Amino acid sequence: MISVAEATRLVAATIRPLGVEHLSLSLAAGRVLREDLRADRDFPPFNRVAMDGMAVRYGALAAGQAEFRIESTQFAGQPPRLVQDATAAVEIMTGAMLPPGVDTVIRYEDLTFRTDSAGQRWATVQALPPRAGHNVHPQAADRHQGDLLVPAGTRLEPAEMAVAATVGAATVAVSRRPRVAVVSTGDELVPITEQPQAHQIRRSNALMLQAAAEAAGARTELFHFDDDPEALRKGLPALLSGFDAVVLSGGVSMGKADFLPSVLRELGVEQVFHEVKQRPGKPFWFGQQPGGAVVFALPGNPVSTFVNFYRYARPWLLAVQQPAGTSATGAAPVPAVLTHPIDFKPPMTHFLLVSLEAGPDGRLLATPERAGGSGDMASLLTSSGFLELPPEPEHFPAGTVLPVWRFR
Amino acid sequence: MISVAEATRLVAATIRPLGVEHLSLSLAAGRVLREDLRADRDFPPFNRVAMDGMAVRYGALAAGQAEFRIESTQFAGQPPRLVQDATAAVEIMTGAMLPPGVDTVIRYEDLTFRTDSAGQRWATVQALPPRAGHNVHPQAADRHQGDLLVPAGTRLEPAEMAVAATVGAATVAVSRRPRVAVVSTGDELVPITEQPQAHQIRRSNALMLQAAAEAAGARTELFHFDDDPEALRKGLPALLSGFDAVVLSGGVSMGKADFLPSVLRELGVEQVFHEVKQRPGKPFWFGQQPGGAVVFALPGNPVSTFVNFYRYARPWLLAVQQPAGTSATGAAPVPAVLTHPIDFKPPMTHFLLVSLEAGPDGRLLATPERAGGSGDMASLLTSSGFLELPPEPEHFPAGTVLPVWRFR
Repeated sequence: MISVAEATRLVAATIRPLGVEHLSLSLAAGRVLREDLRADRDFPPFNRVAMDGMAVRYGALAAGQAEFRIESTQFAGQPPRLVQDATAAVEIMTGAMLPPGVDTVIRYEDLTFRTDSAGQRWATVQALPPRAGHNVHPQAADRHQGDLLVPAGTRLEPAEMAVAATVGAATVAVSRRPRVAVVSTGDELVPITEQPQAHQIRRSNALMLQAAAEAAGARTELFHFDDDPEALRKGLPALLSGFDAVVLSGGVSMGKADFLPSVLRELGVEQVFHEVKQRPGKPFWFGQQPGGAVVFALPGNPVSTFVNFYRYARPWLLAVQQPAGTSATGAAPVPAVLTHPIDFKPPMTHFLLVSLEAGPDGRLLATPERAGGSGDMASLLTSSGFLELPPEPEHFPAGTVLPVWRFR
Repeated sequence: MISVAEATRLVAATIRPLGVEHLSLSLAAGRVLREDLRADRDFPPFNRVAMDGMAVRYGALAAGQAEFRIESTQFAGQPPRLVQDATAAVEIMTGAMLPPGVDTVIRYEDLTFRTDSAGQRWATVQALPPRAGHNVHPQAADRHQGDLLVPAGTRLEPAEMAVAATVGAATVAVSRRPRVAVVSTGDELVPITEQPQAHQIRRSNALMLQAAAEAAGARTELFHFDDDPEALRKGLPALLSGFDAVVLSGGVSMGKADFLPSVLRELGVEQVFHEVKQRPGKPFWFGQQPGGAVVFALPGNPVSTFVNFYRYARPWLLAVQQPAGTSATGAAPVPAVLTHPIDFKPPMTHFLLVSLEAGPDGRLLATPERAGGSGDMASLLTSSGFLELPPEPEHFPAGTVLPVWRFR
């Protein structure tokens, strides 16, 4: 039986970046970029007016001029005209390109206007701006043309969408979504729509895994096989060749109906490991079809399935969306503070369901759930993550800081 | 000009729960539940075998019996048969219903088997279980039939999907998605696919708002209007009656092309407020069409648009998906620790872009970004949230704990 660290290393060793596809930007939200986005122009691309008001030459103000003749009015989106008269001004709007010949903008709040008998408008400055260039966002102040803005490997979140649009990335190269087959096994399972007999239960892991895999960016399909080696031999090959990952739940323990490991090996799937020194979820089986899918065969107890998915399969799904040499944000656990002492004796990693709360001092507080074991599905409802307690020591006092894997 | 607190209150006053729709459970992931989910059976629904091995009567073990005759083998999903002989055992698999007549399960690891000359199998117990009921997950240990499991108002995340499937909720009542029209305005804006002239820029706020609104559960459509009152008068009425919210960017400042507030009022939209004591994003205009959409008219500088969306529009979008009397999880800011001192003089709320990091002691650390102002879109790339600094004091020393609105 291997350690959690070793299992993590072996799962990570199967990570290969997925292929690239080119999508229209508006369809690419949430995808991981596979090309660098660079500034096609300076940011801002011109001396950009940052307030509605009047553009003047600061030298004229400094020389004591208070009233300015309005030579023209310039809206955002209009080409600027040279201001020829050093003592004149342009009434100007936010977003406009500052015209040559002026350098400073005075906002409406600091101006009074009058129109003379000839119909000419004049504005008087009520408050002197502190410096030349005031209320102007100078060309290239933020970024220069050619600068790397969004490197390959970044997920396209709203801020990245805005920048991609600005640089004209109408189509973008992104990772395709991982294809995941979610497979439930177990003769005791009936479809959701059926009324189970006394000794049966409804299929629940499959929908849980589907929702969790889709939230990690995957496209999923659901399958169910009975505990019958022949059905598995017939059904699994198409999944092993047609998907990037096959996530199974059930059928990997020591029971007489736990055919999965032997059938998977028969079908050519190379076993990477079986059983990890962890609770819950010890019977986790992991393998890889040469040239085909990786196989996460998770134990079927709901909490075991859940914890193994978030601990191993989700990080894998996020990682294969990354180009080589980059890592996914949000894939790693974060430190949290245990609010109650915990004892755990067996020398194995303990995944402890916790509710999480942000303390008033900014600390993330983790309170253990009173869970009924790996079959207590309802305990997942009131938890929002699980702490990873290392095999040693046996006692973890309140206040211990431990990594937490969040699932909410 | 009103305070941020007052603006928050006025936006919240327009919140009405959206209508309900009934969806197949597999299509309902991520939606907010509008009905209570209760346990249709006990959790577990029967005394559930939790290990593969052999079920026996504990009394026999306690009386010194070590070897048991295997009367039958029972798989998960098979109806149990009464064990008549108090000294016999059932070989049994995880997930099976414990048969009447036995009460304790001994796992395979603690058993040795032999087959006698008559072909009868026997098992000898190598390690005595600690108590009666060992390795049995008793009926109703976790929840009772009729118990409330998932209350209305809960978002259907993977754990809730599993529980919903278990109780047979093949279709569920959920909130419909809010319909959001995302509207950009501004004559300086050209489509992403076009090469802007020197004084133009590409439309970027619309895609940003679309991605952010969709991530908050909305269905969106994009629109663009030039800075022309006639175009706005023609185009806006269909949006005001056909959507739950209209989110505009640009056209709400003091500029001569900022027609939006007056056109919206002309079209019957009741202005709730215009301008909030905050930086960035002061010119935010908010209104409501009687019987129609609420209107978030956000200033067009990208950082202003962004911050106003996450501060006001996103909480609104999450809240309207909730049934009355419930609140959305993840909609409120969390406390974070300022890593560097900040001074901000104007007596208004300051939204400060920060990068966020989990410190080794479990504290969420917020480091201010060196941002170039409300036009510096690129500063959003390196930030993952913004702190809300109240109008007073002017000086915030390092170590101050402040609420942070996360956008990653």
